[in-house]
Amino acid sequence: MRSVRIGLLGFGQVGAAVARAAGAAQERVRARGLDLVVICALVRDARRPRDLDADAPPLTDAVDTFLSRAYDVVVEVLGGTEPARALVTRALDRGVPVVTANKSLVAAHGAELRALAARRGTSLRYEASALAGVPFIDTLARRPLVADVSRLSGIVNGTSHYVVTAMEAERLPFAEALERARRLGYAEPDPSADVGGRDAAEKLALIGAHVGAPGLSPSAIETTGIDTLEPGDLAAARRLGGAVKPIVFAALEPAGITAFVGPAFVDARHPLAGLEGCANGLRLEGRYVGDLFYSGPGAGPDVTAATILDDVVETMTATGGWAGAATPASGPPCRPPDTAWLARLDFPGDVPDETSLAEFLGAYGVWIRRADGEARGRVRRFLTSRASRARLEGALAAIGAASGAETRAIRVLEA
Amino acid sequence: MRSVRIGLLGFGQVGAAVARAAGAAQERVRARGLDLVVICALVRDARRPRDLDADAPPLTDAVDTFLSRAYDVVVEVLGGTEPARALVTRALDRGVPVVTANKSLVAAHGAELRALAARRGTSLRYEASALAGVPFIDTLARRPLVADVSRLSGIVNGTSHYVVTAMEAERLPFAEALERARRLGYAEPDPSADVGGRDAAEKLALIGAHVGAPGLSPSAIETTGIDTLEPGDLAAARRLGGAVKPIVFAALEPAGITAFVGPAFVDARHPLAGLEGCANGLRLEGRYVGDLFYSGPGAGPDVTAATILDDVVETMTATGGWAGAATPASGPPCRPPDTAWLARLDFPGDVPDETSLAEFLGAYGVWIRRADGEARGRVRRFLTSRASRARLEGALAAIGAASGAETRAIRVLEA
Repeated sequence: MRSVRIGLLGFGQVGAAVARAAGAAQERVRARGLDLVVICALVRDARRPRDLDADAPPLTDAVDTFLSRAYDVVVEVLGGTEPARALVTRALDRGVPVVTANKSLVAAHGAELRALAARRGTSLRYEASALAGVPFIDTLARRPLVADVSRLSGIVNGTSHYVVTAMEAERLPFAEALERARRLGYAEPDPSADVGGRDAAEKLALIGAHVGAPGLSPSAIETTGIDTLEPGDLAAARRLGGAVKPIVFAALEPAGITAFVGPAFVDARHPLAGLEGCANGLRLEGRYVGDLFYSGPGAGPDVTAATILDDVVETMTATGGWAGAATPASGPPCRPPDTAWLARLDFPGDVPDETSLAEFLGAYGVWIRRADGEARGRVRRFLTSRASRARLEGALAAIGAASGAETRAIRVLEA
Repeated sequence: MRSVRIGLLGFGQVGAAVARAAGAAQERVRARGLDLVVICALVRDARRPRDLDADAPPLTDAVDTFLSRAYDVVVEVLGGTEPARALVTRALDRGVPVVTANKSLVAAHGAELRALAARRGTSLRYEASALAGVPFIDTLARRPLVADVSRLSGIVNGTSHYVVTAMEAERLPFAEALERARRLGYAEPDPSADVGGRDAAEKLALIGAHVGAPGLSPSAIETTGIDTLEPGDLAAARRLGGAVKPIVFAALEPAGITAFVGPAFVDARHPLAGLEGCANGLRLEGRYVGDLFYSGPGAGPDVTAATILDDVVETMTATGGWAGAATPASGPPCRPPDTAWLARLDFPGDVPDETSLAEFLGAYGVWIRRADGEARGRVRRFLTSRASRARLEGALAAIGAASGAETRAIRVLEA
């Protein structure tokens, strides 16, 4: 039996779940010849009152005290980029392997941290940082043909997905659905990174690094939040043959990379359209293998902890050859794609008939592909032809100016 | 650049695809520092006229000639258990790693071959042997928490799935749909292993070995073919809130393992219900991670070849720690589960009303949960309560004896 001394950076919900899971999974992990022991956890304030289990690890808020211990693996569950980056760097620099679930850290600093780990002959694993319950990142890192992806699309943020699902199922306005998510623990007190799309953009950048789109900067990806959606949009989407979901998308062409993050109309035949609640999913369209789809839980302390512990087991049993170092540090820039759109026009007065509307928009290079036949009141929704954002917004601005209509549009993700 | 000398056992469709893919993927694989070269292929009859590419490898039908060469990896694409087992054993015995797509071989001899590989310090990889385009087997082997599965269900045979999909989409009888599959290359000249369910049972046994159900014998798993299905069954299933699919299922409980292979009514909310055509899918319900779902291509020479080559890359780059040896050789026996059923009664004369039918069957311990309201002619279909096969067949035998009705039933897979 080999003792595995784990140092925890952080002891919040996920950190505590890791300590609990190490106990609960003890027998299964011992069957692999490993005995996991969390010997110390670094927290911001060790004197803050906490509700600790009897077998919680010793806590310290002194970095030097934490780093004075000898660890076989350091698990980082602080979140955020600092001090996580600095502490992970110190561990890797000493040749101590690190396991993290921190997509912000990996999206911002993954390349340099992977390179550091490789230089020191150790590893950085982060399977739990995107689609927390679904192991796929290391698979892509180790297998070059399946990683040769031409297009990827996914639902990678459980908070947004839960909110959109609740909005549709119960016809709730966004704010009420978000409040419910907060009450149930599916949204944080400050949910802006989730509903605003930043979390999803970071995950897209992280995944991109493993499928031939390295160096994506989350802030350079067109990112739209879900806060301007209305229940009427979701119902109309169903009538139009799809569903509105919070989407990440990237296409990798020889000419360059296109990508976007935000709510999108997803064709009903697309596997993502069938997901709901907090579920995450990822579809990879590859040049060699074809069409792959993974789905599963995207978050949750116990799910995240289980994936972290599986990463710990892999770290201790993969006695050589860690694939993470193979990801390059930078790649081509990305721009948003041309897509079809689901547009919403809210007229203050008389509503033009569909023919007039179609003619007007057509003059601006945007055509109506399918209109929602159950239009109510002064709202009209329709799917458009493919257009650049500039062209689409030009057409909507023109109809807005001509009629006073409020206009909105979200992108379309084709099957 | 490291040269990787590949020896191919077999040069049929898949073998030729492996040789082609090694050329097509050369650049991508070289980016990993590997240069793949197929230096020899063993075939049954080297003098048989073949349509070979210009860069096909040299062929031989002399085993000793083949084995006299030095290989870094042997790829087995003969299929069947012999001589595949004997030849793979000889390679592993010499410490040469093997990659295979042969589920029959792995289902029948996986435990002993894995053990031999471990004793000789080498590896046996077979990612392409189940859900050929979806890498998941090694993930389960390496990660103990995600592999702690309580229930699994899947569609693992593309031929059967294509046939059932075609039967439904075009209302074709089984024999016509099978003939179309053969014409399009989705079924072999002798499709009995596919449509009879043996292929699927072997894959279930293979997967079982990696999720805590080792030692399943394919012949000990209740296996039913798809040949007694009618288009009317498939349409009725949709009306009843589900779809008929060719299913593998296993539940792993402390009391023991239950499993079945065969056509089943799948609740529409189950992720497998949304698949069609040749697609394969696998749902794992785990104790730590929750509900995972993978789907993708299950077969096809180019897809299989790509997965085989990714296994070759992993073999050459994983300089230590191959997880496959961890699977035990045997485990608890399995029996079929109690499930609900989708029953079909075909009356030769007067058809009893639903109340009489329900009372009759209820006396035998089987209740009607939901009847197909669009019953036509003398056929009645309905979903039953949960019952053992013995109880269900007893009730159907009784109604058959009392009314002369022909009776059939398939299992239900709950969401």
